[in-house]
Amino acid sequence: MADGPIDAKIGIIGGTGHEGSGLALRFAHAGFSVGIGSRSEPRALARARELAVALRSAGRSANLTGMSNSELLDFADVFFLTVPFASAPDTVSGLSFPPGKILVDTTVPVSFSGGRPSVVSLEEGSSSERIARLLPATVRLVAAFKTIPARLLSDVDTPLDCDVFVCGDDDGARTEVMRLCEAFPGLRAVNAGRLANAATVERMSALAIELNLRYKVKYNRWRLVGLEQ
Amino acid sequence: MADGPIDAKIGIIGGTGHEGSGLALRFAHAGFSVGIGSRSEPRALARARELAVALRSAGRSANLTGMSNSELLDFADVFFLTVPFASAPDTVSGLSFPPGKILVDTTVPVSFSGGRPSVVSLEEGSSSERIARLLPATVRLVAAFKTIPARLLSDVDTPLDCDVFVCGDDDGARTEVMRLCEAFPGLRAVNAGRLANAATVERMSALAIELNLRYKVKYNRWRLVGLEQ
Repeated sequence: MADGPIDAKIGIIGGTGHEGSGLALRFAHAGFSVGIGSRSEPRALARARELAVALRSAGRSANLTGMSNSELLDFADVFFLTVPFASAPDTVSGLSFPPGKILVDTTVPVSFSGGRPSVVSLEEGSSSERIARLLPATVRLVAAFKTIPARLLSDVDTPLDCDVFVCGDDDGARTEVMRLCEAFPGLRAVNAGRLANAATVERMSALAIELNLRYKVKYNRWRLVGLEQ
Repeated sequence: MADGPIDAKIGIIGGTGHEGSGLALRFAHAGFSVGIGSRSEPRALARARELAVALRSAGRSANLTGMSNSELLDFADVFFLTVPFASAPDTVSGLSFPPGKILVDTTVPVSFSGGRPSVVSLEEGSSSERIARLLPATVRLVAAFKTIPARLLSDVDTPLDCDVFVCGDDDGARTEVMRLCEAFPGLRAVNAGRLANAATVERMSALAIELNLRYKVKYNRWRLVGLEQ
């Protein structure tokens, strides 16, 4: 990644879901080479083809490839974990990340009861901290994109017009992920400190989802006012 | 309050601190009659005089009166709790609120260690829920203003330009407080649901304070993007 983020190959673990597909589209649209991973290689291939067709029919470049999650480990430089939070522990436990690679956790521990979302209380404090305990120390874990609505990511012509809160205990990895975020139009990357702050960011995501329902809107997301004086 | 919020008398419990003085100034500036309460009546009187002088010297009306916290109970219609979170349980336990009155909790459970702020973990989930357990059921508790920087409140000529998140289990009380909030220029009141959501809002306040320090700014605060489609 010495020559800038555009050189990083992006790997989306669980890239066939809404969040993963949205990130894949945005990164491909920004010129990155993107691998879409899935437990099922055929599903990954189908989704990559579908996203590439959508981008090319809009006259965009589309450097997208589908593959199994384990093939993705050899392909990419930076990984995004976009599986549902409940599957995240099994998913990361089943993968052997090459040492030194960055893994970006996007999961949010939300459950729905009677249609109402609420944060799932985790002993570790946050979904990111739970995942951290399952990873070898050689994987550089960063939390990001937790508060960006998945379906808004898929609408590549709409500027995101919000902040992304990037947390992690590895300063260098957090800085690299912040740099990647800046490739998305209208997205401001905020250094949100240590990984434990993911607990706050995950709660903010759950509150935004609750407010989507109450206010009958789709894309609630967050911005700090006052960060630039 | 039938004829609109301007008719409500505002009582600030712990009104000699930054948060309380800021709210007192904003409400007086908006035309409300404001009582500043303190454990020490002389301190309350001195602060009320000081704030009134500041407002009048800027050509503003200033309907501000100092009194003891217990005198305040007879004076006001809506109360704002602005003492430090650690004193809040003792303060509310020592006051006998008239039945049916609204109490707005603004406290945030933050502690500083080595200059770094962090959320104090409370068994009840949030400072507001802790206070709720100490109040009789006849007091209508609402959480609000937790994410608005105290010193920004004191600068009455600066529009707040952010959202205030209003939580509470009494729908009518929450609505009345939202209506009061709309008297402040640039402040949008967001119905943030049940009182338990105060746990999220308190964490957001702590994160904004941490980001003030990291980014060397003073007034970080929050806004939802996408609430109005």
